[in-house]
Amino acid sequence: MLKNDLILRTLRGEPTERTPVWMMRQAGRYLPQYMVLREKYGFFERCQTPELACEITIQPIDIVGVDAAILFSDILVVPQAMGLEVQLIETKGPVLPDPIKTTNDLSRVRIPDVDETLGYVFDAIRLIKQELNERVPLIGFAGAPWTLLCYMVQGKGSKTFDEAKAFCYTQPVLAHQLLQMITDTTIAYLQGQVKAGADLVQIFDSWGGLLSKKDFEDFSLRYIRQIVAALKDTVPTIIFAKGAWHSLEAMAATGAQGLGIDWCIEAPVARQFAGGQVTLQGNFDPAKLLSPVKVIEQETKEMLAAFGPGRHIANLGHGILPNVPVDHARAFVDAVKNYRH
Amino acid sequence: MLKNDLILRTLRGEPTERTPVWMMRQAGRYLPQYMVLREKYGFFERCQTPELACEITIQPIDIVGVDAAILFSDILVVPQAMGLEVQLIETKGPVLPDPIKTTNDLSRVRIPDVDETLGYVFDAIRLIKQELNERVPLIGFAGAPWTLLCYMVQGKGSKTFDEAKAFCYTQPVLAHQLLQMITDTTIAYLQGQVKAGADLVQIFDSWGGLLSKKDFEDFSLRYIRQIVAALKDTVPTIIFAKGAWHSLEAMAATGAQGLGIDWCIEAPVARQFAGGQVTLQGNFDPAKLLSPVKVIEQETKEMLAAFGPGRHIANLGHGILPNVPVDHARAFVDAVKNYRH
Repeated sequence: MLKNDLILRTLRGEPTERTPVWMMRQAGRYLPQYMVLREKYGFFERCQTPELACEITIQPIDIVGVDAAILFSDILVVPQAMGLEVQLIETKGPVLPDPIKTTNDLSRVRIPDVDETLGYVFDAIRLIKQELNERVPLIGFAGAPWTLLCYMVQGKGSKTFDEAKAFCYTQPVLAHQLLQMITDTTIAYLQGQVKAGADLVQIFDSWGGLLSKKDFEDFSLRYIRQIVAALKDTVPTIIFAKGAWHSLEAMAATGAQGLGIDWCIEAPVARQFAGGQVTLQGNFDPAKLLSPVKVIEQETKEMLAAFGPGRHIANLGHGILPNVPVDHARAFVDAVKNYRH
Repeated sequence: MLKNDLILRTLRGEPTERTPVWMMRQAGRYLPQYMVLREKYGFFERCQTPELACEITIQPIDIVGVDAAILFSDILVVPQAMGLEVQLIETKGPVLPDPIKTTNDLSRVRIPDVDETLGYVFDAIRLIKQELNERVPLIGFAGAPWTLLCYMVQGKGSKTFDEAKAFCYTQPVLAHQLLQMITDTTIAYLQGQVKAGADLVQIFDSWGGLLSKKDFEDFSLRYIRQIVAALKDTVPTIIFAKGAWHSLEAMAATGAQGLGIDWCIEAPVARQFAGGQVTLQGNFDPAKLLSPVKVIEQETKEMLAAFGPGRHIANLGHGILPNVPVDHARAFVDAVKNYRH
C-alpha cells in the first residue's frame, strides 16, 4: 500500500488534505547528483542499466521531496525499439540519422516484441518499485505517436517540424500507417510498464501544439484515444499535449483522468474548456523558477489559488530547466506542500 | 491614389469585393529571384541598399500577385541602431555577441536618432513607393519590444528564451527600462516609416506566445499599446503576437485595426475572443503549402469560409517556409483571389 497516494486520489477526483506536486524532468540536469552520473555514463547506458535508471529516478524524491517518481528514460526508446537508430548527443539533442521519408523507409520499422526490446525498462520499474518501498507512486510514460512521428520523420529536433508535417500532408496514408504502428507499440510498452509496477502513466505530446485543432484530431488525438482506451482498466492516464489548449475538451472526452497544461492558459479558462470531470496538471512557467525564492513562493501560491482545491496536481508547464538552483526547485515544492486551500 | 486598397478598406471594416491576401516573409528564400540576390549580397547589404531592398520588396508583387508589399528588412535593425552588434549568419540565425545582462550593459544602448541610424530604411521606402507606383499598399514593420528584448538579452534564437525571461523575472526594473528604450526607438522608427510612405504597419511579437497572459500584459502589451497609440492618427496598425491567443481581447482593445493569428486558433474562436471591431489576419499553416496544389486550394477555401466575408486579411499563420514551391504559394494567393463569399 502506498504511503503517499495523493496524486492517485486527486486523479480519481477524491478530496485530499493538500495539492500534490511533482515536476516534469525532475530527474535531470539541475541536480548535481544526476550530473555525476551523467559524466560517467552515456545516455542510453543510464536508461538501459536498471540500477542507474533506478538511482536517477529516486534522486528527486530524496532531494526535493516530490509526491511522485517518474521513470528515468526517454520517449525515443520506442522508435529505437521499432528499429530506427537514435543518437542522443547531450549538447545537441536527438538525431535519427535514417529518418522515414518514403514507403520503402517504412519497411525498416516494425512493431517489436516489447519484452525483448524494452525489457530493460520493465526491469528498471521493478527495481524502482522495490527501492521506493511504497513511499510515493511511480509514473510510467511514453511519447504520443504524433510526437514520435515528428522525430522519426524530421530526424532531429525542430521549431516547426515542417518536414514531419509535410510528410503527413503529402503522404497521409503512409503517415497513418506509421502512426498506427507507433500506437500499437506504445500500447504494449505502457501495458508492460503497468505490469512491471507503474502506478499511473503520462503520455507526452510535446509537439501537439504545432497542429491545428483539426490536424491534432487527425494525426494525434485519434491515436492517443486508442492508448487511453487500452489502459483504462489498469491505471490512470495523464495526457500532456503542450500548447494544444484548443483540444482540452476533446482530450477530456478520451477518458484520461488527467490533462497537463502550460502557463499560457489560465487555470479557470482551462477548467472551463476541460470540464469538471478531469484533473488538471501544471502550470508553473519553468523560467519562473529562476526568479528569487520569495517570488517563486508568491507565484506558486497564486497558481494554487487560481486552480482552487481538488482536481489539481501542481507541476511545471514544461520540463525543469537545467540552470535552476536546487533550492529554487525545493522552494516550489515546499510552497505547494505548505499551502492550504 | 492606390489602385488596390483592399487591405486598407478591410482594416477599416469596409465591405470589399473579395478578401485581400499577402504572406508573411513573402519577399524571401522560396523565390529563386531572391536567392540570386542572396548569393551576391550579405543580409545587411540587402537591407541597407535601397535599390536592393526595393527590388526584393517588389518581387512577390510581380511573381505571386499579393495585395500588399512588405518592406524587406529585419526586426533586428532596431537593436543594431540602438548600439548592439547584430550578426545575421544566414544558416544559423541571428547572433548578438554582447547581449544585455546587467545595468552596466544597459549603458551600452541608446535611443538613437532614427534618421541617422535607420535613414536607409526610409530611403528604401521612398524608392519602393515610387517603383510600386500605387499598385498596392506598402506595409512597414517593427519587432515588438518584448521580442527585441528576447534577442538583446538571450543573444541568439532560442525555443524558450529562458535567459530573457529570467532577466525580466530577476531584474524587472532593468527590463522595463530596456523595454521603454526599445519602445521609444520603435515609435520614432515607425513614424519615420509612415512619413517616408508606409501605408500601414505591422508589429511582430514573434515570442509573445512564450509568456503567460499576465506576463504578456506586463512585458509586452503595455509597450505595444504605446506604439499603437503613437501611430493611431497616421496609418492602421496590425499586431501579430504569435501564440498569444489568450490576449486577443486585450490586443483588440489597444485600438489596433488588425490582429494576426496562427493556425492553432480556429477563426470563429478568434473572432469571439477579439470581438467584431477588429480585422483578423491569417491563419493558413505554412507547412500546408507543402501539400499538393489541390489540397492547398481546398484548405484555403475552407479557411476563407471559416472567417466569413469582411474583417479578414488572408495570410499564413507564420512566415512562408523556404522550401515551398513558388507555384504552391501562387495557388494559395489565387485561391483567395478567386473565392467569393
